Amino acid sequence: MSLKRKVRIGMIGYKFMGKAHSHAYRDLPFYFNTDIEPVLQTIVGRDEANVKQAGDKFGWLSYETDWRRVIERDDIDVIDIGTPNHLHAEIAIAAAQAGKHIICEKPLAMDKEQAFTMWKAAQKAGVIHMISHNYRFSPAIQYAKKLIEQGVLGEIYHIRAQYLQDWLMDADFPLVWRLRKDICGSGTLGDLMAHSIDLARFLVGEIEEVSGMMETFIKQRPMEGLPGPTTAGPTAGTGEQVLADVEVDDAVAALAKFENGAFGVFEASRYGKGNRNGNRLEINGSRGSLRWDMENMNTLQLYLDKDEFGMQGFRTIQCTESIHPYAGAYWPAGHGIGYEHTFINLMHAFMEGISTNTNPSPSFEDGYRNQVVLDAIAKSASKGARITVKY
Amino acid sequence: MSLKRKVRIGMIGYKFMGKAHSHAYRDLPFYFNTDIEPVLQTIVGRDEANVKQAGDKFGWLSYETDWRRVIERDDIDVIDIGTPNHLHAEIAIAAAQAGKHIICEKPLAMDKEQAFTMWKAAQKAGVIHMISHNYRFSPAIQYAKKLIEQGVLGEIYHIRAQYLQDWLMDADFPLVWRLRKDICGSGTLGDLMAHSIDLARFLVGEIEEVSGMMETFIKQRPMEGLPGPTTAGPTAGTGEQVLADVEVDDAVAALAKFENGAFGVFEASRYGKGNRNGNRLEINGSRGSLRWDMENMNTLQLYLDKDEFGMQGFRTIQCTESIHPYAGAYWPAGHGIGYEHTFINLMHAFMEGISTNTNPSPSFEDGYRNQVVLDAIAKSASKGARITVKY
Amino acid sequence: MSLKRKVRIGMIGYKFMGKAHSHAYRDLPFYFNTDIEPVLQTIVGRDEANVKQAGDKFGWLSYETDWRRVIERDDIDVIDIGTPNHLHAEIAIAAAQAGKHIICEKPLAMDKEQAFTMWKAAQKAGVIHMISHNYRFSPAIQYAKKLIEQGVLGEIYHIRAQYLQDWLMDADFPLVWRLRKDICGSGTLGDLMAHSIDLARFLVGEIEEVSGMMETFIKQRPMEGLPGPTTAGPTAGTGEQVLADVEVDDAVAALAKFENGAFGVFEASRYGKGNRNGNRLEINGSRGSLRWDMENMNTLQLYLDKDEFGMQGFRTIQCTESIHPYAGAYWPAGHGIGYEHTFINLMHAFMEGISTNTNPSPSFEDGYRNQVVLDAIAKSASKGARITVKY
Amino acid sequence: MSLKRKVRIGMIGYKFMGKAHSHAYRDLPFYFNTDIEPVLQTIVGRDEANVKQAGDKFGWLSYETDWRRVIERDDIDVIDIGTPNHLHAEIAIAAAQAGKHIICEKPLAMDKEQAFTMWKAAQKAGVIHMISHNYRFSPAIQYAKKLIEQGVLGEIYHIRAQYLQDWLMDADFPLVWRLRKDICGSGTLGDLMAHSIDLARFLVGEIEEVSGMMETFIKQRPMEGLPGPTTAGPTAGTGEQVLADVEVDDAVAALAKFENGAFGVFEASRYGKGNRNGNRLEINGSRGSLRWDMENMNTLQLYLDKDEFGMQGFRTIQCTESIHPYAGAYWPAGHGIGYEHTFINLMHAFMEGISTNTNPSPSFEDGYRNQVVLDAIAKSASKGARITVKY
Repeated sequence: MSLKRKVRIGMIGYKFMGKAHSHAYRDLPFYFNTDIEPVLQTIVGRDEANVKQAGDKFGWLSYETDWRRVIERDDIDVIDIGTPNHLHAEIAIAAAQAGKHIICEKPLAMDKEQAFTMWKAAQKAGVIHMISHNYRFSPAIQYAKKLIEQGVLGEIYHIRAQYLQDWLMDADFPLVWRLRKDICGSGTLGDLMAHSIDLARFLVGEIEEVSGMMETFIKQRPMEGLPGPTTAGPTAGTGEQVLADVEVDDAVAALAKFENGAFGVFEASRYGKGNRNGNRLEINGSRGSLRWDMENMNTLQLYLDKDEFGMQGFRTIQCTESIHPYAGAYWPAGHGIGYEHTFINLMHAFMEGISTNTNPSPSFEDGYRNQVVLDAIAKSASKGARITVKY
Repeated sequence: MSLKRKVRIGMIGYKFMGKAHSHAYRDLPFYFNTDIEPVLQTIVGRDEANVKQAGDKFGWLSYETDWRRVIERDDIDVIDIGTPNHLHAEIAIAAAQAGKHIICEKPLAMDKEQAFTMWKAAQKAGVIHMISHNYRFSPAIQYAKKLIEQGVLGEIYHIRAQYLQDWLMDADFPLVWRLRKDICGSGTLGDLMAHSIDLARFLVGEIEEVSGMMETFIKQRPMEGLPGPTTAGPTAGTGEQVLADVEVDDAVAALAKFENGAFGVFEASRYGKGNRNGNRLEINGSRGSLRWDMENMNTLQLYLDKDEFGMQGFRTIQCTESIHPYAGAYWPAGHGIGYEHTFINLMHAFMEGISTNTNPSPSFEDGYRNQVVLDAIAKSASKGARITVKY
Repeated sequence: MSLKRKVRIGMIGYKFMGKAHSHAYRDLPFYFNTDIEPVLQTIVGRDEANVKQAGDKFGWLSYETDWRRVIERDDIDVIDIGTPNHLHAEIAIAAAQAGKHIICEKPLAMDKEQAFTMWKAAQKAGVIHMISHNYRFSPAIQYAKKLIEQGVLGEIYHIRAQYLQDWLMDADFPLVWRLRKDICGSGTLGDLMAHSIDLARFLVGEIEEVSGMMETFIKQRPMEGLPGPTTAGPTAGTGEQVLADVEVDDAVAALAKFENGAFGVFEASRYGKGNRNGNRLEINGSRGSLRWDMENMNTLQLYLDKDEFGMQGFRTIQCTESIHPYAGAYWPAGHGIGYEHTFINLMHAFMEGISTNTNPSPSFEDGYRNQVVLDAIAKSASKGARITVKY
Repeated sequence: MSLKRKVRIGMIGYKFMGKAHSHAYRDLPFYFNTDIEPVLQTIVGRDEANVKQAGDKFGWLSYETDWRRVIERDDIDVIDIGTPNHLHAEIAIAAAQAGKHIICEKPLAMDKEQAFTMWKAAQKAGVIHMISHNYRFSPAIQYAKKLIEQGVLGEIYHIRAQYLQDWLMDADFPLVWRLRKDICGSGTLGDLMAHSIDLARFLVGEIEEVSGMMETFIKQRPMEGLPGPTTAGPTAGTGEQVLADVEVDDAVAALAKFENGAFGVFEASRYGKGNRNGNRLEINGSRGSLRWDMENMNTLQLYLDKDEFGMQGFRTIQCTESIHPYAGAYWPAGHGIGYEHTFINLMHAFMEGISTNTNPSPSFEDGYRNQVVLDAIAKSASKGARITVKY
């Protein structure tokens, strides 16, 4: 019945992000009037039973167990990369060379050099490329962007952003892949602070210099049956727990100066007990301030200096009105949305990019710039000195 | 690929609730492992162009313009009633007689007599019947139910619940169908307070007596080009605005005693400026208390008397953990859901009911009992006397 | 050194309110530039050791053990009545007849007839008279009053107010004087709801009709060694606990219509587990709304309809600016005050009244009108019918 | 009537801190049963008319215009230093040499060397010495200290603290003394961050290394008719505004590692629009977390890992119970206190110190250690390198 252009997706990865992306593709045409209809063409995972089950549940038409196969297929227009970080570059570059549009989970790469190569490969291939910084697509954040652009906050003096979780605090929690440097490149830095840096770059601007501090509170953890770095000797048949060094950061903090003179303070941790997904920020400008917290994502706190004296205060705005970006596609005012809608909005931007052949934001360039900042923070933490960020 | 039992839906209505229900059917198998797969068989609306467009966007396989046609069709297993209130009874009774399972929007009927007839018709037909009190299906509310059942709050002394909106406050806002007694039966009473009464019955128990108060703040409003009651004469060609009497309540409040001795205070209004969808409640028991607010639906406030002295306080629980009902189907802890998920959860209960041939709650009986309370409130408000609620 | 007019206080009562009033007199000249300096002349209590100790600690120059003595004394200008309710009338009338200015704790009397007599006695004597509704004197409430008077909220549609405490929930808690009808006249009605009614009359206007509901959840309690009503026989020497009937209300709720058409919902309880002193209200008008909660007394939530679309939301105003009534006398913006400052502000109004010979508000007339409403609520609760409030 | 030991105060300074300290001395015996009664013996200020007026209003028995005179007086037991920072050292050292007990406003000195000299002088003289870090004396903070000491939070991983104000953001605001380096030594660093560092040292422990960043957003401001640094030439008679360089920091941030391994992130600013006195912190430990915000000072947010799964969440504790330090001296539970009570509590500790001849905390040693951290932050900010903190 639909006359929409069909865009066929090949998605690599089927767990947390695989679920989030699958859902977003499915729901996009339900909520938005787009020219494009994403087709859930094939889903890829190494474990055949699992990927088959996921594909069935999520509504994919087929599955593959080797990502290279998908890139070769002619019936695939988009490669969606939801794998662990160490595979992003190889897949993205292959996808670009095959002329596929690409959406890649964050952080873009293991380091800035890899990220740069990915960006340049996508650029050279002329494909649409995007990095999946979904929090940017909360209506509250998109509205904050508008307000800042319109000068409602005036000159920006401050941003402080925290991203705190607490799932890793048990010392018996094993060394899962998210804690392995060879797979992720970093810990909280790439997993959590990457989001805060993206929000800061989106809302405030480019970062010019940083001072970093990183910490690994629990230095060794039980191995997960994975081949990996270990400090313990062979324990076959002994029943003993094998401990491995944790090589990534449990927590990271950074001080930053922005090109426009703003002052940034960032912190991310997996040891923030009680903070399940505490992704929050506050921005102060000469004319106003705003606060946002993902744990209450539908609201934006806004302070306006121009309010009448005596009536000044942070307003709790429910960003569920038609004027709030993306919100009009969903429900009446006051009927909030959830985490998954950030991905629907993001996929809307991605499909619009494909439809209009205009690269959306955040692009691989954003992913690269983000990575440059992350690398500088890590380097500063290691050297104990302030670092100028060079893109 | 799926071996699930297919249940074919015929949905009557395609606007706000039509959208919410359509989405819920679509997303149900994505999130839950159910035996049943709802099929979006046909959608019904009187305006062909509009219903066709809605059906296309929402993913329905066909459409109809006469609800009677759908009830006659053999390829329909479920009738979903999302029409204005005055049509609920006729459709539901016809559907029951045709052996269709039924889900009906709230309030169940125009009055308790109608509601009783609907309930008995469904019961007699042996079909599964449910009323769409979606807020009951918020994980926080379902969890509150569990806590109360387990005695965590002890004996319940108090419930106070408010449902405040503010979309009607402009005196130029026209007399839309929601403001017409012949179409809706009541105003805030059936639209908003019905939800609070459902939550109270679910969490606290049956209501025994009520005192009511109702008010229509703005007594006349511009007509909407609808045939309807009017106090003004014909104004054809004059360009004058025709005012019609507002015959339903803008606000309602009620005091209630429950069978178990609890003390209830309820209030609903469309004149609660600044409250977009302020559906909130507080319950106090001998051992603890809880608070919930739909505007921040993922959290539940819980106070436990047994907490150590000095450390007592309302806890802000994010009901996004695997232990919180329905929450495990969605996202990791701290990644909240939205308004629409209350419908997915509700449809899950409905499909489970069909699958196991066990009538889910809230049923038409609940709709009837709710209506008995609403009618008693209206009667009390009109008579200025406390009313015993008789079921 | 001071050239201020000295006003000599005789205060009857030395416990909770005695402490609050003593402190207010002491601190008044520290914070405010008034013409009058209150002198803590004499404090009165029946137990000599206790009143002496309290007087010493609070800074009183002398003490008495019989309130009649103080009224006779020439060196007393003001009688401050902080006794249990059943003594208010006798003391106040005697004080008026002796030409003393009077400040009396709330509720003014045991019933409206008594209250009326007190008011008329004070009026006839030409003395300054005031009732100690301290919450009115929170800067946030005073500012709310200003906003409403200036029309900032427009026409008022709604007030909902709750006053919830939880100190009485243990069934072993004895029948203290606050639970005795012969001493207090009522329970939560006069103790807590009186405050809410005062705030409502101050902010919204006069109440025209009410429907009430009252409850005593725990019907009997251990006696406190007081002579009083009992249902148990003599138990001398048996060591058994003597239970007495609780004759006052544990909880009360009321629906109200105001003369100006506003719609009121009130609730007070001592069974609101987790609410230590939950005195809160919300007012909705055609142009805006406000919310206040004594547990966070320095802030006022204000919603303004005129705010730009998209930027509307409740503002959290810290009422600590020079523009907020009384706040300028204290500390810089953002440095909040506490419960006791409501009394300092109240005493400021009282002393200004004495200084300018103008009766301040709330006066005994306010106390009387409050009592008329309370009596109507009790009567409505007892009769199960709506009651017109007749002043 | 009182048999308490009288301790005669000589207070230097009569403005903001003069008012706060005066009030605390006055109210101390009202609320607490102490052995000591502070006597407001003499108040000192250079402007005779002003100090006389302040002394009269605040209740001082006499005044002086030269601080040296007070130190010479035999009828003075305590010197209370509330002057601008540049005078602290000279006065404190003279007071110590004269055998007076000393309480000094924060920051203790212009730099760590001065602070060290002050500490050693007080120590040598054997007088009681204290620094007025009043926020430590909020019941919520004192209770937090207890919880941490009892191990309720487990091992501490994180502290993040912000102190944000917004009074300085207008570019026309003049170069008041608080903005002059010769008078204050620093800007936000000594004025605001000193408080956060004190809270961190009190609650978490000693800081081992820091990375700092400082900023002056508005580099020049109008002079205030004060002699001081200026970049403009003489403008006598021209009516032109004379601009002077702002030599102190408008904002400062620091990353810190504590001796116990905790990770600290600190930020202070006078450009935090909308934050009037936003002094807040969050601490995360292995077993729990807490949050506190001075703008809602009576509450403490506490998260306990041991809470039953599903019922975990930050509790909002009202620190107004008898078990909360100092709170029992004031009002019943739920009846909050204000800013000024932090000083009453502090003075209670000071008088207890004098009474028992035991130096209270925070002492001049704490002031010195605080200053060492502040100096290290400033040095790190200037050098762009992490600094080891050496006491």
